[in-house]
Amino acid sequence: GTAKVLCGPKNVVVERTLTSPGVFLLQMGWGDLGAFGEPSKETPNLDQMAAEGMLFLDFYTASPLCSPSRAALLTGRLPLRNGFYTTNGHARNAYTPQEIVGGIPDSELLLPELLKKAGYTNKIIGKWHLGHRPQFHPLRHGFDEWFGSPNCHFGPYDSSERPNIPVYRDWDMAGRYYEDFKIDLKTGEANLTQLYLQEALDFISKQQASQQPFFLYWAIDATHAPVYASKQFLGTSQRGLYGDAVREIDDSVGKILKHLRQLGISENTFVFFTSDNGAALISAPKQGGSNGPFLCGKQTTFEGGMREPAIAWWPGHIPAGGVSHQLGSVMDLFSTSLSLAGLQPPSDRQIDGIDLLPVILQGKLIDRPIFYYRGNELMAVRAGLYKAHYWTWSNSWEEHSKGIDFCPGQSVAGVTTHTQEEHTYLPLLFHLGRDPGEKYPLSFASEEYQQAVEHISGLVQQHKATLVPGQPQLNVCDQAVMNWAPPGCEKLGKCLKAPESDPKKCSWSH
Amino acid sequence: GTAKVLCGPKNVVVERTLTSPGVFLLQMGWGDLGAFGEPSKETPNLDQMAAEGMLFLDFYTASPLCSPSRAALLTGRLPLRNGFYTTNGHARNAYTPQEIVGGIPDSELLLPELLKKAGYTNKIIGKWHLGHRPQFHPLRHGFDEWFGSPNCHFGPYDSSERPNIPVYRDWDMAGRYYEDFKIDLKTGEANLTQLYLQEALDFISKQQASQQPFFLYWAIDATHAPVYASKQFLGTSQRGLYGDAVREIDDSVGKILKHLRQLGISENTFVFFTSDNGAALISAPKQGGSNGPFLCGKQTTFEGGMREPAIAWWPGHIPAGGVSHQLGSVMDLFSTSLSLAGLQPPSDRQIDGIDLLPVILQGKLIDRPIFYYRGNELMAVRAGLYKAHYWTWSNSWEEHSKGIDFCPGQSVAGVTTHTQEEHTYLPLLFHLGRDPGEKYPLSFASEEYQQAVEHISGLVQQHKATLVPGQPQLNVCDQAVMNWAPPGCEKLGKCLKAPESDPKKCSWSH
Repeated sequence: GTAKVLCGPKNVVVERTLTSPGVFLLQMGWGDLGAFGEPSKETPNLDQMAAEGMLFLDFYTASPLCSPSRAALLTGRLPLRNGFYTTNGHARNAYTPQEIVGGIPDSELLLPELLKKAGYTNKIIGKWHLGHRPQFHPLRHGFDEWFGSPNCHFGPYDSSERPNIPVYRDWDMAGRYYEDFKIDLKTGEANLTQLYLQEALDFISKQQASQQPFFLYWAIDATHAPVYASKQFLGTSQRGLYGDAVREIDDSVGKILKHLRQLGISENTFVFFTSDNGAALISAPKQGGSNGPFLCGKQTTFEGGMREPAIAWWPGHIPAGGVSHQLGSVMDLFSTSLSLAGLQPPSDRQIDGIDLLPVILQGKLIDRPIFYYRGNELMAVRAGLYKAHYWTWSNSWEEHSKGIDFCPGQSVAGVTTHTQEEHTYLPLLFHLGRDPGEKYPLSFASEEYQQAVEHISGLVQQHKATLVPGQPQLNVCDQAVMNWAPPGCEKLGKCLKAPESDPKKCSWSH
Repeated sequence: GTAKVLCGPKNVVVERTLTSPGVFLLQMGWGDLGAFGEPSKETPNLDQMAAEGMLFLDFYTASPLCSPSRAALLTGRLPLRNGFYTTNGHARNAYTPQEIVGGIPDSELLLPELLKKAGYTNKIIGKWHLGHRPQFHPLRHGFDEWFGSPNCHFGPYDSSERPNIPVYRDWDMAGRYYEDFKIDLKTGEANLTQLYLQEALDFISKQQASQQPFFLYWAIDATHAPVYASKQFLGTSQRGLYGDAVREIDDSVGKILKHLRQLGISENTFVFFTSDNGAALISAPKQGGSNGPFLCGKQTTFEGGMREPAIAWWPGHIPAGGVSHQLGSVMDLFSTSLSLAGLQPPSDRQIDGIDLLPVILQGKLIDRPIFYYRGNELMAVRAGLYKAHYWTWSNSWEEHSKGIDFCPGQSVAGVTTHTQEEHTYLPLLFHLGRDPGEKYPLSFASEEYQQAVEHISGLVQQHKATLVPGQPQLNVCDQAVMNWAPPGCEKLGKCLKAPESDPKKCSWSH
């Protein structure tokens, strides 16, 4: 998913006036930006943002899939804690399609809920993906405004079988994809990114005019299949439709940053750009991006599935042209944003995010591991430059034989396995400096292996000892909970009749 | 191979005072520089060079192997024309080991020979690789000075079976690798890059003092296996020994550019940095680099084998931060250098290089194809964003089963074939914008395929119609021609006795 967290108050003490933003780019891979080596180099605005700010080269999502990753960003907690996982199968990726019964639990404290206490106005533009039933509505979880959709923009659907996804304006639906918000699957044309851009510019203007601090989560999704772009961007990229979508996003980011400058609040606004999962290679080349030199893509816990492009921008505070090897996570945006707002993270629960301000402002490096989960299983752990795989899996032979391939053109024996392989007692170890592509496991007999695995195993033990899994939210599906009659449908004549409730275990195939 | 072409005259009309340079980096892959997305981002000087100059994203060698590529750079002609190929087997890569009988023919006109006519002093530092027998000596082919070796720094050898490779100072040998110029294979320590750096700095100082224009070809080879670095760089890279070597080269380039600035001749000196072949993945991860998102590596005609990092630098002339998608070639350095010196390329022969100055100075794009040869076979052709493969081959099953793998972790069905597959009548076609990794051949039935292949086939026909192959230089090997008694060996007591001459067909396995 794609999102941007933008907060910019004005004329207040700096420590309390600035907060966390992020452009959180749906399905964009590490290798999709010019600054990260994409060979067409078509992202001048993002490259410029990096040149003016700080580039994070070792930044991760909390899941190789969108919903859990977004839940982690907004709660600062691993999906296994906040409930965004399934126990229906071992190590399965789950998300929030229309049938999902679960969503973000009320017990979770979301970033906008906390920022509210410091006087922030919070807006989400784009895809929410934390549950679409009334109790999960973003305005019930701290956001003040919303323009966007609760689920992916899949479709179009025959509305007798399945409703088209609604687009909300705050509490109520404003229409549906393919009906009121067009996406032309044949040409790839849709003006949604332009709508989302205008929403962002207007919101920022309004906040600046009222001198109110704000948090903007710009969760765009043009690079998620079905990929789309506005007419003026169609055909402009060397990379095809996916590239057109990237170019439009790049252009939009440039316009947002320019707007902040023109309003004179760029030095009061912290902007972070990242992605919620690696490029979906399964959709490549037409609808999927690039993970650069990394192994595999979305759905996997190899680097291509979870290492993300990441840029922090805050003129006058972050030294231009900075580069950091800090192991970072989308969950850090939670803690960093609170820190910017002068708030403490909640003390009654485990928070996995860390405050990156010492990294960003003073160039510090904080020692912390990265945990790679797939559903309910800890698949791998990175500490320093070492990454230990406790489980390996791309997807099943059955799926693979149908052409579903998360690692197209790539195959590393014993690593990109098509059966779930356990390595708990003898983890596969890679040195990501010498071998960023995870192709050459270290010898089990080497001293280097022994030392690194001993260290990482200690971290795992510690992690597991204190881990209290949340109630799994992604286990139960029911056709009756789909977006048949979202709030506001009456006014638009867009209410559909829901079928009888028939809750079932959701089926998660990978 | 690694090389740098540096030319800097002074106080003359600009058009006539400046010439071509290039750091030509042995075995370095497209993905080895921070500016090209290497995730450790350890090349601050080269990245800075790119930020101050122009980055070429679509720049190629003329061969996936060093000797032919270097011969092409210095002659501006394809290896098939200048004789740097073999007919001993179909589509085999050949180079200049010690046993080679051939070398650069007298009939070829080398860049330094031509620059001499314009008053340039020419120096080669590092690996020559265009033949080691007396008639092929670089000082017989236009260079005025030489510090370096004629062959790769393989070894150490038992001198009764095989002499160690000599290092020359101008006409005479100055010692041998492993004997007088140490390379510690165990630690990877060798101070050769420092020696080459000092040679470069001294030469530039001398030329500046005498106000003489110069051409410096800095053909370093620290990133060629056996990879080495000086003590102060050992262990400094996240990437292991290969990264240490890259860091030392990066540091050296920074020092050379700084030296040019300090001497006040940076605006009179055109510097070009590139590589002679893709990263040797067969030597990875310890001794081989990265080709970023591209397929396979050295020895192959996939993008990883021949697309190279490339940077042009010329302060005051090249606008900072430029990026070009011009399809470029190492052979263009020949034509561009002549143009800088105000010289015309020879008119009595086919020159494959083009003058890049309009690209570099005016941002023009020149329509021209790229021909991918492997030995005597035209394997593939790129025109615009389309690349047609007429033959595919990585290496033989026999070699592959011994662990020799030019595409580790990568396998694209029907593309990275282990038998030589002919596609002459139905080329495999890729769109390198949408699919830089050459994973998704276009449908033969599509109109896009028809049009692109028709266009490219026309170019091939035209190319083949006028192509006159040179006498193949890399067919015959003879133990007697090895570096037993190079000139100057008597003074050093380093002469060895050559065995009886026994010329044979060289064996080229891939």
